[in-house]
Amino acid sequence: MTHDPVEKTPVTLLGLGAMGAALARTWLSAGHPLTVWNRTPARAAALAAEGANAVGSAAEAVAANTLVVVCLLDDASVDEALGAADLAGKDLVNLITSTPAQARARAGWARARGARYLDGGIMAVPPMIGVPESGGYVLHSGSRELFDQHRATLGVPAGTTWVGEDAGFAALHDVALLSAMYGMFAGVAHAFALIRREDIDPTSFAPLLADWLAAMAPSVHRTAEQLRSGDRTSGVVSGLAMQVAGTPTFLSTAEQQGVSPELLSPYFELMRRRLAGGGGGEDLTGVIDLLLD
Amino acid sequence: MTHDPVEKTPVTLLGLGAMGAALARTWLSAGHPLTVWNRTPARAAALAAEGANAVGSAAEAVAANTLVVVCLLDDASVDEALGAADLAGKDLVNLITSTPAQARARAGWARARGARYLDGGIMAVPPMIGVPESGGYVLHSGSRELFDQHRATLGVPAGTTWVGEDAGFAALHDVALLSAMYGMFAGVAHAFALIRREDIDPTSFAPLLADWLAAMAPSVHRTAEQLRSGDRTSGVVSGLAMQVAGTPTFLSTAEQQGVSPELLSPYFELMRRRLAGGGGGEDLTGVIDLLLD
Repeated sequence: MTHDPVEKTPVTLLGLGAMGAALARTWLSAGHPLTVWNRTPARAAALAAEGANAVGSAAEAVAANTLVVVCLLDDASVDEALGAADLAGKDLVNLITSTPAQARARAGWARARGARYLDGGIMAVPPMIGVPESGGYVLHSGSRELFDQHRATLGVPAGTTWVGEDAGFAALHDVALLSAMYGMFAGVAHAFALIRREDIDPTSFAPLLADWLAAMAPSVHRTAEQLRSGDRTSGVVSGLAMQVAGTPTFLSTAEQQGVSPELLSPYFELMRRRLAGGGGGEDLTGVIDLLLD
Repeated sequence: MTHDPVEKTPVTLLGLGAMGAALARTWLSAGHPLTVWNRTPARAAALAAEGANAVGSAAEAVAANTLVVVCLLDDASVDEALGAADLAGKDLVNLITSTPAQARARAGWARARGARYLDGGIMAVPPMIGVPESGGYVLHSGSRELFDQHRATLGVPAGTTWVGEDAGFAALHDVALLSAMYGMFAGVAHAFALIRREDIDPTSFAPLLADWLAAMAPSVHRTAEQLRSGDRTSGVVSGLAMQVAGTPTFLSTAEQQGVSPELLSPYFELMRRRLAGGGGGEDLTGVIDLLLD
């Protein structure tokens, strides 16, 4: 099959959950011929009504196009869907959330079947897909050749960010960013719990909270610089000793408000351990060392 | 003493640590007559060289002006410094970090001595003071009269935000915002630990992390709306069941990277408990209920 240069690259997409369906619609809107398969056929039928070529098996969907994007539930579902498919000569882009080890194993599995492999981690929720101003993007790692060749097509649903040839790096970045987000959400949960029993409107508190977190987020650049240089004392603004001295106020406030400290105290405990271990001239970066075995 | 209308309100400042000294310099720069006292006199002498009136006792500093700003170490140091001072007719603005209960008790203490009382929580580190574009500000609660009368003077070092007549509310907002920040820092520590043993430059990872956290911070508005309305299922984008299903990938990744899950697992445990309790149609807001006894 040859393509006119202006013709858009055809895409096969496996998996039409909320995220898969959102991806599918952006490729259809951008004029890419799209073949779809989903384990439960109703979702594929809905996409067919919007112009997709819905087929009855994953193997058939894979056979239809060179570029095959996978947006299934998890790593196990990739084996289920692609066990019988011929992957020789295919460009497999795997967007499921997995561990780095799963992504690396999947890359070896794909190469052994004659496919090029690119792993991806989607840093967005479905409503951010196809909305460039949302800031959503996909982390990619693995075959640079595949990435370079299909970059424009892969960039249709959201921005693309390259993080390395190691097929596990997209998953690792994905998990690291989402882990940081869950930490932030834990802090947010504690904060809302603290005001819960007072006559404070949470929707009046929320703008303060959103602005404060956004203002503090850039401190990660100083942390990164300290990690890179190995000098945990460079650019310190709030010393660890002073911050540890402040923690009883946080714990007493939680007690006064009837809030369990379980989401806050593990971090404070690591701050105390680092200070006791001699980190008095540092800020908080040294806590990271205590997490590594 | 009378003042020409264009003359700036004189200020007394007790406490010249890093934060107190930063505040002091902004009032001096703005032309406010400034009287300072610090427990260790060397810091007061440095400010005197820049135009402040440095005095030898807190009582003397209090006697010098009506508006008295306190930026000492903690609540106990307020008793030490002001035990012997005559507070009758004074406007006391207490910027130390304290619990809401301490702030309320201090308000009663001040009123019993004939002073008006305003509590404040500084949402900034010293380098942000006097830098309007830094977004730093001071939360205030307590005497609205005092706040309205001195708002311009109080706003010289950083923006001011009023959070209520309850003298404990500034402290509660302060502690809540800082608690959320520590949660975010815990997540950030976990994230950096995950990439630590890979060939990934932390300063290349940091921009992704800062942008992602800033992009996710506005989700607190949806949380607040769900708390306000009581409907934990409105506007749900990522369901709790799907998020709980994803947690093993985060914990396995931590294990693969040799990272302790201690900062992440308490939040995941609450997510699981909420889901088990029937929160399947929710997102993460229901976790907040589990923190309240």
